[in-house]
Amino acid sequence: MSEINARKVRQAADYVRYLSLIAIEKAQSGHPGLPLGCADLGVVLYRYFLKHDPTQPQWSNRDRFVLSAGHGSMLLYSLLFMSGFSVTLDDLNRFRQWQSRTPGHPEFHAALGVETTTGPLGQGFANAVGMAIAAKWRAQRYNRPGYQLFNNRVFCLVGDGCLMEGISYEAASLAGHLGLDNLVTIYDANRVSIDGHTDITFTEDVAARFRAQGWLVAQTDGNEPRSFATALESLLQTPGKPLLLIANTVIGSGLDRKQDSSKIHGAPAGLEEIAHFVRHSTMKPVVAAAAGIDPENDTDGLMAWLKRQAESETPLLTHAEALEFMREKLPQQRKMAAERDDLWHRYQREFPQSAAEILQSGENGIPVDLDSALAAYREDTPDATRNISGRVLNLCAGHIPFLVGGSADLAGSTKATIFDSAYLGAGDFSGRNIAYGVREHAMAAIGNGLALDGTIIPFSGTFFSFFDYLKPALRLAALMRLRHLFIFSHDSIYLGEDGPTHQPVEHLNSLRLIPGLISFRPADDRETAWAFRYFFKQADGPVAIVTTRQKVSPQGRPDPDWSDFLFGAYEYKAPQTNKAPDLVIMASGSELSAATAAAGELEETERVCVRVVSVPCLELFSAAPYDYRKALLQDFQVPVFLVEAASYRGVDAWFHPGIHLIDIQRFGQSAPGKVLGDQFGVSAHAVAATIRACLKG
Amino acid sequence: MSEINARKVRQAADYVRYLSLIAIEKAQSGHPGLPLGCADLGVVLYRYFLKHDPTQPQWSNRDRFVLSAGHGSMLLYSLLFMSGFSVTLDDLNRFRQWQSRTPGHPEFHAALGVETTTGPLGQGFANAVGMAIAAKWRAQRYNRPGYQLFNNRVFCLVGDGCLMEGISYEAASLAGHLGLDNLVTIYDANRVSIDGHTDITFTEDVAARFRAQGWLVAQTDGNEPRSFATALESLLQTPGKPLLLIANTVIGSGLDRKQDSSKIHGAPAGLEEIAHFVRHSTMKPVVAAAAGIDPENDTDGLMAWLKRQAESETPLLTHAEALEFMREKLPQQRKMAAERDDLWHRYQREFPQSAAEILQSGENGIPVDLDSALAAYREDTPDATRNISGRVLNLCAGHIPFLVGGSADLAGSTKATIFDSAYLGAGDFSGRNIAYGVREHAMAAIGNGLALDGTIIPFSGTFFSFFDYLKPALRLAALMRLRHLFIFSHDSIYLGEDGPTHQPVEHLNSLRLIPGLISFRPADDRETAWAFRYFFKQADGPVAIVTTRQKVSPQGRPDPDWSDFLFGAYEYKAPQTNKAPDLVIMASGSELSAATAAAGELEETERVCVRVVSVPCLELFSAAPYDYRKALLQDFQVPVFLVEAASYRGVDAWFHPGIHLIDIQRFGQSAPGKVLGDQFGVSAHAVAATIRACLKG
Repeated sequence: MSEINARKVRQAADYVRYLSLIAIEKAQSGHPGLPLGCADLGVVLYRYFLKHDPTQPQWSNRDRFVLSAGHGSMLLYSLLFMSGFSVTLDDLNRFRQWQSRTPGHPEFHAALGVETTTGPLGQGFANAVGMAIAAKWRAQRYNRPGYQLFNNRVFCLVGDGCLMEGISYEAASLAGHLGLDNLVTIYDANRVSIDGHTDITFTEDVAARFRAQGWLVAQTDGNEPRSFATALESLLQTPGKPLLLIANTVIGSGLDRKQDSSKIHGAPAGLEEIAHFVRHSTMKPVVAAAAGIDPENDTDGLMAWLKRQAESETPLLTHAEALEFMREKLPQQRKMAAERDDLWHRYQREFPQSAAEILQSGENGIPVDLDSALAAYREDTPDATRNISGRVLNLCAGHIPFLVGGSADLAGSTKATIFDSAYLGAGDFSGRNIAYGVREHAMAAIGNGLALDGTIIPFSGTFFSFFDYLKPALRLAALMRLRHLFIFSHDSIYLGEDGPTHQPVEHLNSLRLIPGLISFRPADDRETAWAFRYFFKQADGPVAIVTTRQKVSPQGRPDPDWSDFLFGAYEYKAPQTNKAPDLVIMASGSELSAATAAAGELEETERVCVRVVSVPCLELFSAAPYDYRKALLQDFQVPVFLVEAASYRGVDAWFHPGIHLIDIQRFGQSAPGKVLGDQFGVSAHAVAATIRACLKG
Repeated sequence: MSEINARKVRQAADYVRYLSLIAIEKAQSGHPGLPLGCADLGVVLYRYFLKHDPTQPQWSNRDRFVLSAGHGSMLLYSLLFMSGFSVTLDDLNRFRQWQSRTPGHPEFHAALGVETTTGPLGQGFANAVGMAIAAKWRAQRYNRPGYQLFNNRVFCLVGDGCLMEGISYEAASLAGHLGLDNLVTIYDANRVSIDGHTDITFTEDVAARFRAQGWLVAQTDGNEPRSFATALESLLQTPGKPLLLIANTVIGSGLDRKQDSSKIHGAPAGLEEIAHFVRHSTMKPVVAAAAGIDPENDTDGLMAWLKRQAESETPLLTHAEALEFMREKLPQQRKMAAERDDLWHRYQREFPQSAAEILQSGENGIPVDLDSALAAYREDTPDATRNISGRVLNLCAGHIPFLVGGSADLAGSTKATIFDSAYLGAGDFSGRNIAYGVREHAMAAIGNGLALDGTIIPFSGTFFSFFDYLKPALRLAALMRLRHLFIFSHDSIYLGEDGPTHQPVEHLNSLRLIPGLISFRPADDRETAWAFRYFFKQADGPVAIVTTRQKVSPQGRPDPDWSDFLFGAYEYKAPQTNKAPDLVIMASGSELSAATAAAGELEETERVCVRVVSVPCLELFSAAPYDYRKALLQDFQVPVFLVEAASYRGVDAWFHPGIHLIDIQRFGQSAPGKVLGDQFGVSAHAVAATIRACLKG
C-alpha cells in the first residue's frame, strides 16, 4: 500500500504503546505484551482498512473488529480513543476500575465500538466467524441490484492462545467450508504465551493447518507497517476463502529490554522500562514538550513526571499529532455513512417490505400474531417435548424471518431446525439452517456472533449432556445479554440406552446457577410454547429450553395465567376434592407426568389430597414474591416432595427440612428409559411408593 | 502384510456384523453403522496387530485399543468376545440392558478389555494421547538395557465426529509436538454423520491437517483387509511421529441397500435388512447350518429364525470357525506374556527399587511419611491458597515419583507444577511436567489417559473459570472413578481486575453437583494440605481443589479432627465466651477469612456469641450424619449465615428459611479484588454489616 505514512503510523503506534503502558501502570494490572506488539498493525488497521464511522459506532454496515486475544484490551481501547470513538482519555485513566468503561477484558459495548466480550481464548474468533456468516446472510437476503446495503467485512485479531484452543479449529473448519471471504483474521504470531515461548508445546505449522481447512494464508512482518499493509491488501483481492494473515510480531515491542519474553505478557512493565521506552521512541519529543524536561538527560525529571502520569487521578498525556493523524479520515467516514443513509432511504421506498423486515430485526418484541398463537398453543396428542419444541420453533420461524440457527449434527434428534429451509452454504447464504457439524463449542460462539451482528436471532441445539461442550460460549451469551436461544434435548436419564455419557444429571442445576440465563424445562405443550414466548417476549438475554426425548403426558392441563408462569411455578393439578392439600409434589419436565400420575394414584389409594406444582423455571420461581412461593408450598405445613431427574448434590445440605427430595445424585446407566425411571426412583410408580412410605413412616 | 488370510478375515468380519446387527435388533437401540463399516479393519487389528493377552486383560505392557467413536460399541464388544476376552455371548445378548456388561457406549472396565469410557466425541482420542504419553514416560523411567519392560502401543479408532470436535485438534497438536510414535490412530473415514454426508459441513483436508500438526499420514481402503494391513504395517516402520491411517470405509458396509447413508448410523437395521445381509455374506452357510434352512430360498424360514435370534432370551449364534480363527493366537499370546513375566521377575531382582516403585504405582494408598507430613502441615505466614497448594503438591511429588501433570499455560499462576522437574518433550519423557498449552479440554482428557494407563497419578491445573472448557473430560474422570487431581486457582471475583470473563460465579456449585466428584475449597494451609491428603488417602475418584489468587488469613486455626474434616464442615472458631452461639456463620475458602473477621467484629460491637463454621467440602457435609449437621448449625434455633462468593441461583428456592444467604448471583466486574469484595457484599466488613442489619431488623 503505497500511501501508508510509515512515520505517522509509528508515531501513532508509539502513542498506543504509551497509553497502554501508563494505563496498566495506573491499574497495577493488565497485559502490555499484545498492545505493544500489535500497536503498529493495529494503527494500520484502524487508520487505513476498517470501514466505519466513529460517530455512529452502531452503523450496521461497519466493518467489525474483534480482539479475540482480549487480554490485549488496551490496544483496542487506545485505538478506539484515537480513532474518534466515544472512548475518552478519562476512560483510559480508569482502566480496570470499578464500573469504568474500560474493563480488564473488552466487554461488549456497541456504543463504544467494542463488538464483543473476549478474554476466554478462542471465543472472539468464533464470534467473528458468526459475524461473517451473518454479514453474508443479510447481504444475500437484503441487497438488490444497485443497492449494496451490506458489504462489510469482519476483522479479527487472534493470538497464539486463541489458536491453541479447540474452538478455534472448529470455527476455522466451518469458516473454510463456508468460504467466508469477508472474514479477515490477523494472527499475532509472537510465539510467546504465559508459560514461555510456544515452542515448549505449540509447534504445529499454522499456515498449513489453515490451508488444510480451506483458508487463504499469507505471512508478513506485523511490526513493519508497509509490509503488513501490502500483504493485507493483496490478500483482500482474492475472493472465495476466509483470509489469514500471519503477522510475525515481537511481544512487548518497544520495550527492548523486556520484549520477546513471557515476562511482558501480563504484568505492568514498571516505570524504569517506560522511561526507557520514552527515551527510545517517538514519544520522546512529546513527553519533552508536555513535561518541560529533556527525557534524554534528565532522568530524575522524567521518572518524576512518569510517576505522576501513573497516578490514578493524573490525566493521560494527549498526543495531538497522533490524534490528528488517526482522525483525519473522520470527514470521509461521515460522508461514506451519509451516502449509505441515502441509499437506505431510497431502498426503503423501493423495497418497503424488505426495509420493514430490516427495521423489525433491529427491534425487540414479539410479533403480535405470534404472541397470540403461542399464548393459545395446544397440541392434540401427547408427545416428546423435543417434537413439540420443533413445531413451536417452526411456528416462530414463520413469523420471524431472521430466526436462523442450527444444531451440532443433531437436527433430526433435537428438532432444532427450520423444516422448510435449506442449509446455508458457500456461495448461497439464503438458507436459515446452519449445519454446524459436531462442533458444539463453535456453534454456540458462532451463534453469539450471529446475535452480535444485530440482524439475526440465533438458535443452537444439541443434546443436553453436551451443554458441557459449549458452556463457555453460553456463559458469554449470558454475560453479553444476547438474544440467543439454546435448545437442549434428551434432558435426563430417560433418554435410556445411550447410557451415562449421554444422560444429563448435574446439568439442569448447573444451567440455573448461571447469572442472567433463564432456563425452562417444560412439562407439556403449553409450557413448551410459553418458553419460546418468554424468549421472544420477555427475555433480554439468552434462554435455554430443555426438552425430553420421550413422550410426556401430564394429567392436569390447566390454563395458567401468564403472570403465574412468569413466577416460574404454578399449581398444575389441584387436589381432587378442592380441599386444602395434604401434600405437595413439585416437579418439572417429564417428572411432572410422573408426579401427576403418582398424585392420582395416592388420592385414590391413600385418600389424601395432593397438589401438584409444575416448576418450568426455577430461577423465576426463586425470584418470585415470597407470599406466592409460600402459598404454593402451603408454607411447609404439609410434606413437600420435589421430584427432578437431576442432581442437587451438595447444595441440598441447605434445604428446608420439609422438602423430601427425590433427585438423582449418581450417574445414569445404559438401559431402557422406563427401567431407569423405576430404578432411579423418578417414575410415577416409584414416586408414589416413596411418598406412600413417607406418609406411613 | 502377506500372511493376512483375507477369506478368514472376511468371515470373522461378517460375524462381527451379524453379532452387531442382532444385538442392536434385540435392544431395539444402537448404532450399526460403525461396527459394520469397521468390521474388516477391526478384525485385522485384533487378529494381527494388537499385542495383548486376553486371559490377562490388565497385563501392563498390552497394546491399548481405544474406540473413540464410542457409539460403535458393538464392534468392540464383538471383537473382545471373539478374541477370547471375558466378554461372553450372553453379555452381547444383554447389550444396552440394565446392569449388563455391554452398555450402549463402552464404559471403562479393565477386566473386560474396555480401556476407557467413550461416547462424547473426541474424548477417547485425547485419552489415547494420554496413554501414549504415559507409555513413553514409564518406558523411559523403568526400562533398562536388556529389560524392555514397556514398549506397548496405543491404537485408537476415531470417526468423522471425533475429528470435528475441537478437543481432537488440541490433542493432536500436542501429540505431534511430542512426537508420539507409539500412537496409532485409525480414522474411520466413512464421511457420514447423523445429519447426513459430511460434505454439508466438514470438508477440510484431514491428511493435510494432521501433517500440519506433525503427524505421519497414510490412506487406505478400510474395507479391504490386505490393503489396510499393508498400509498399517508400513506406517509402523517410521519412528518419530504419531501415525494416522485414514481408512476409507463404507458406513454400514454389508447392508448394500442401506450402507453409505446416515440412516444406518444410529438405528436398528430391521430384520429384512439382516436377512438380506445373511443371504449375501459369508454368514449364509453358518446360518443355514444353525437354522437347518436354506436362507437363499426359504425366506419365511430365515425370517422366522432371525426373529427368534432377535428375541432377548435367545442365545446369539456361535460361529465356531470365526472364533477359532480369532483365538488361534491365544497360545502365542500367553507365551509372550509369560516371557514378559520372566523378564519382570529378573527385573525385580536386578532393580529392586524401580520394581518397588512400579508395584507402588499399581496400589492405592498414601505413603505413610506423606500422610504424617500432610496431617501436620502448617505454614508460618498467611498466603494465597494457590501458593500453599503449590508447595503441598510439591511435598506430595517428593513422596510419589509417578505424580505427573501440568497446566494449561498457567503453571506460574496456578502453581500446578513440579518445581524441580522439567517439561517432558519429544525424545525425552523423563520430565514430570507437561506443558499442555492453552488446551484445557485436551489437558483434562489426556490426564484421564495418564490415569487409565495405570502407572501415573495425574494432576491438571487451570483457572477455575476455565473449568468450563474442560468439564466434559472432568465428568468422564468422575464417571470412570479415575485418580485424577484437578487444581483450579483464581476461584472467585477476588481475582479482581481481569473481570467477569475470568471470575467464576456459578462454577463452585456446578462442581458440587457432579456425581462422584469431591471438591474442596480450602480456607487455610491445613485445609489445603488436607484436601491433598483426602485425594491420596481416601478418594477412589477424582478430586478438585479450588484455590484463591489472593491471601487468606482466617482467625481461628483450630486443629480439627480428621474425622470432622471428613464430614465436610466443622467449627472453625468457637464463640469467644464459650457460650452457645447466638448466630452461626458458614463459609468456605477466602470467605472464611471474611467470616472470622466479621465474627470478631460482631462479638465486640454487638456482644453476640458467634460460631464460625468452615465448609471445605459441601458434598461431604451434605452426606454427613444428620445429628452432626444439626448440632453444627444449632438446629437453626439461631440465625445461620452462609457466605460464599458463588452462585446458589435457582436452587436457593428450596433453602431453609433460617439460612441467610450471602452469595453472588450476578457476573463479576473488573476492579481490584478488595473493591469487589465490598461491592458484592462478601468482604468482612460487608458481611458484618449485613449480619448487623439482620440482627437489628
